Amino acid sequence: MTTIAFLGLGQMGGPMALNLVKAGHAVRAYDLVPAAVQKAKEGGCTACATVADAVQGAQVVVTMLPTTQAMEDLYLGAGDLLALVAPGTLLIDSSTVAPQAPRKVAEAAGAKGLAFIDAPVSGGVAGAAAGTLTFICGGDAADVERARAVLSHMGKNVFHAGGHGAGQVAKICNNMLLAIHMAGTAEALQLGVDNGLDPKTLSEIMLKSSGRNWSLELYNPYPGVMDNVPASRAYEGGFKTRLMNKDLSLAMEAAQASGSATPLGALARSLYALHGRGGAEDLDFSSIQQLFARD
Amino acid sequence: MTTIAFLGLGQMGGPMALNLVKAGHAVRAYDLVPAAVQKAKEGGCTACATVADAVQGAQVVVTMLPTTQAMEDLYLGAGDLLALVAPGTLLIDSSTVAPQAPRKVAEAAGAKGLAFIDAPVSGGVAGAAAGTLTFICGGDAADVERARAVLSHMGKNVFHAGGHGAGQVAKICNNMLLAIHMAGTAEALQLGVDNGLDPKTLSEIMLKSSGRNWSLELYNPYPGVMDNVPASRAYEGGFKTRLMNKDLSLAMEAAQASGSATPLGALARSLYALHGRGGAEDLDFSSIQQLFARD
Amino acid sequence: MTTIAFLGLGQMGGPMALNLVKAGHAVRAYDLVPAAVQKAKEGGCTACATVADAVQGAQVVVTMLPTTQAMEDLYLGAGDLLALVAPGTLLIDSSTVAPQAPRKVAEAAGAKGLAFIDAPVSGGVAGAAAGTLTFICGGDAADVERARAVLSHMGKNVFHAGGHGAGQVAKICNNMLLAIHMAGTAEALQLGVDNGLDPKTLSEIMLKSSGRNWSLELYNPYPGVMDNVPASRAYEGGFKTRLMNKDLSLAMEAAQASGSATPLGALARSLYALHGRGGAEDLDFSSIQQLFARD
Amino acid sequence: MTTIAFLGLGQMGGPMALNLVKAGHAVRAYDLVPAAVQKAKEGGCTACATVADAVQGAQVVVTMLPTTQAMEDLYLGAGDLLALVAPGTLLIDSSTVAPQAPRKVAEAAGAKGLAFIDAPVSGGVAGAAAGTLTFICGGDAADVERARAVLSHMGKNVFHAGGHGAGQVAKICNNMLLAIHMAGTAEALQLGVDNGLDPKTLSEIMLKSSGRNWSLELYNPYPGVMDNVPASRAYEGGFKTRLMNKDLSLAMEAAQASGSATPLGALARSLYALHGRGGAEDLDFSSIQQLFARD
Repeated sequence: MTTIAFLGLGQMGGPMALNLVKAGHAVRAYDLVPAAVQKAKEGGCTACATVADAVQGAQVVVTMLPTTQAMEDLYLGAGDLLALVAPGTLLIDSSTVAPQAPRKVAEAAGAKGLAFIDAPVSGGVAGAAAGTLTFICGGDAADVERARAVLSHMGKNVFHAGGHGAGQVAKICNNMLLAIHMAGTAEALQLGVDNGLDPKTLSEIMLKSSGRNWSLELYNPYPGVMDNVPASRAYEGGFKTRLMNKDLSLAMEAAQASGSATPLGALARSLYALHGRGGAEDLDFSSIQQLFARD
Repeated sequence: MTTIAFLGLGQMGGPMALNLVKAGHAVRAYDLVPAAVQKAKEGGCTACATVADAVQGAQVVVTMLPTTQAMEDLYLGAGDLLALVAPGTLLIDSSTVAPQAPRKVAEAAGAKGLAFIDAPVSGGVAGAAAGTLTFICGGDAADVERARAVLSHMGKNVFHAGGHGAGQVAKICNNMLLAIHMAGTAEALQLGVDNGLDPKTLSEIMLKSSGRNWSLELYNPYPGVMDNVPASRAYEGGFKTRLMNKDLSLAMEAAQASGSATPLGALARSLYALHGRGGAEDLDFSSIQQLFARD
Repeated sequence: MTTIAFLGLGQMGGPMALNLVKAGHAVRAYDLVPAAVQKAKEGGCTACATVADAVQGAQVVVTMLPTTQAMEDLYLGAGDLLALVAPGTLLIDSSTVAPQAPRKVAEAAGAKGLAFIDAPVSGGVAGAAAGTLTFICGGDAADVERARAVLSHMGKNVFHAGGHGAGQVAKICNNMLLAIHMAGTAEALQLGVDNGLDPKTLSEIMLKSSGRNWSLELYNPYPGVMDNVPASRAYEGGFKTRLMNKDLSLAMEAAQASGSATPLGALARSLYALHGRGGAEDLDFSSIQQLFARD
Repeated sequence: MTTIAFLGLGQMGGPMALNLVKAGHAVRAYDLVPAAVQKAKEGGCTACATVADAVQGAQVVVTMLPTTQAMEDLYLGAGDLLALVAPGTLLIDSSTVAPQAPRKVAEAAGAKGLAFIDAPVSGGVAGAAAGTLTFICGGDAADVERARAVLSHMGKNVFHAGGHGAGQVAKICNNMLLAIHMAGTAEALQLGVDNGLDPKTLSEIMLKSSGRNWSLELYNPYPGVMDNVPASRAYEGGFKTRLMNKDLSLAMEAAQASGSATPLGALARSLYALHGRGGAEDLDFSSIQQLFARD
């Protein structure tokens, strides 16, 4: 049993903390929103009123925050997390943020003798609840190994992408590619339908051909082709357009910083921005299919 | 044993005809290029000097031509194929052409009591040689079933996409999606490399995450990541950029005719056109990776 | 005074024919739609019941048709125009069509000793009524000079772009560029507004800076910035989205045929296709501004 | 005569400072690079060894720095400029930076009773030397009016775009639109050439038609069409590709921050990134024409 401070108990962090409790850990939970702390307490966590309270006696701290700003504020700004934790603590940030943020935090943490890794997740709210997330980690190999014992209770895959920030880079590369093949799949299906094909037949053919991709396999965006996906329940649930827009913006920032040319990724961002502006921010991201439909 | 006329013995048609011979059929072979006919003869075909000669006694005719124009000329123009074949003949066109071409041919064939299907292939030169092609068919179900006996000796999958032209539509939808995820994969890998990641590690992570697609799985475009793919032999062999450009042009023609919006497909065509113009027409299409590299 | 047959009396052709009458020519008018012929008659044309009737005694024939197909049918197909006209007749096609169509017609016309030029127009319905169109001509210089006497009564500029088909090529290049800077101007204005700028102030600054273009100068797409443009009357009138979509498709066909890379043009086509599908086919093309607005 | 501190004496700042000297002002010059200070001294400026030295007795400070980081460091970081200047000083930043930077500086300046405006320029190195720049200002109207007396000796237009940061927003909107119509013009010219047109004839036609834009008018990208432009001297001089890439990145950052969809702008950035990576970083930005040429 490890004593773990869990900071950030939203849609993702909340169920992740409960999975640590189920695995037998002592979890000290904190969030800015009291109702989230209360819910964590009902699930077996120790409710904490402040960050300082939460990190009392913790060997590991997991943070799950919505933005780069919030993450930097907690670690380096007003939250002053690095000053509050005990020497030897392992800090794991599972937020999705710009890659330079974990690099800055890692440097500051290292100066204080603290271990820090970035460990953003893939798998969404459903994966957080089921404990089947994928963690994509950046940092020193020994720290990633040490984190594995904790992360394995919240997910089924733990990858080591490289040094500090590499977890974030790998995640945004992956999600950019996901946006590209999701929108591309939607375009291809609509082109087929516009030319007389049945979307289910076309999906089956492409799935067994070189067009195959994760969107076609597990998350078909065309309504009625696949059961139990957002497309078959009016695009409710799943991974929201606004979150895909956030990840695509992070990918574009990285591309701009490194001078990389990502024409399809940039176009995917613009299409998702158009789609969100058209009223789809809270629909699942596979609803990009609607953008290509005839009025 | 069926007597089959095979018209068009190029890089694809040549090995396809030989696989029919191996399966025990009597194959009557014709091509505009005498050397191609000679090679077919060496493989066991009967060499024919004209189209009229080739279709003598044939119950089935298979055609494999390079362009829409060549296909229409053979069936409806100077080649006058429909006038030369016996009643009851099954005509199978495996060329990749604009979808309206098989619709026109099917109408003219039907008026003469002849059965016609479009059956473009996926799988490339390697699949043609190995007999592992995928055939994507359009036409009447009974004709597709009748064709299956012949097609199954040249490929491992025979799909029925819908009515006349549907095989072509499904093929160009698939290949448009292939171009999108290939170029998208190349972009994502370069973005990762530009931000310090190892392309092999990043490929492994995305392959087990939602970025997964056929290009990552079987045809990684980054040199050195995967053995036995064009990227690891200077992009020699494989499916040439010029052929991808042809298929993307067909996809765009279909999109323009149906008024479909295919922004990613259109951008993929432009990127492949840029790439081809830059000198890569005869390299494998995964060489699009080079477009994103730093000079 | 010249006797001129005018074939095709739609929104463009109708007022063009009347301007020829006003200039003192004898105009023999024909259209498939009897009401259009009647209206031309009221404007001073001689109403004709058939193409054969219209070309009686004509030294010049002007055609203005909606599609490539209609143009080819009239000249080379069922219309059989080339067989009906007298030797020495000058044929002027002002339709916007694929460049290969005038090339085919010119060849057939030349074989019969007839002069033919392509002369598509720029300037829209307002320009047709006001007699201020721009004609962009392709064909032999002498024929373009001969046509100038007629064209100058319908427009203020007559350009000679090159040989047969060059008028069409120049027109689609121009209209592709127009679509690019119109959509680009809309994007830039929305970006400014989203970041707190007044669209009128921003327009004035860009108009005096390097962003200047025809859309900003004469046709500002942002509502309220400029009087007397479609943007200030709910995008009524003007040049419809469906017509811009037609011209962009012609541009893309030309690009595909020549293997040209036109990434911005291809994206503009996709954006206009999305916009049209969203219900804007009959709005002026500057309504692309709406695509970028927040819901 | 005003005493003006000029900080940042690079390719733009150097000649700008000299124009202030020519207009009779006392200019105190500073740059990190001693050679730049020496050159300013030869032109009549007072050479200063530090920022603190330069601002001695200055009523106005003009800054011209290469990046957002450098600008923030000077005003808010190590440079500590706001602490060094006398009360009542007018601070004018002519750097091109992210819009949030001048907002932050303006707030900090206001808290100290200092006036600050952002005043990025358009017009390039040639405009800096000739004193014909355009200044696009953001800030309080009274401060912009006060700045006009100084700015008018370095440029011919002074625009007031809006509040703090608005000058930067207007500049990046303008430059994004410039990149779009420059690349669009290059595409259109290449499409015409690929289809048999003369680029000069096509340019003349589009210049008198709705394709007209600043690139066609003053800066034709096709070699040989226009004299005295970079395209006619191997793309030497002018506005470098690397600077256009910087401005496009700033535009994309703004679009991402405001959630704006800028598909053409994003594609223009990717095309310029591809072009720069291909070896053209130091060529004039109209060299994008080369990207579309056939190998």
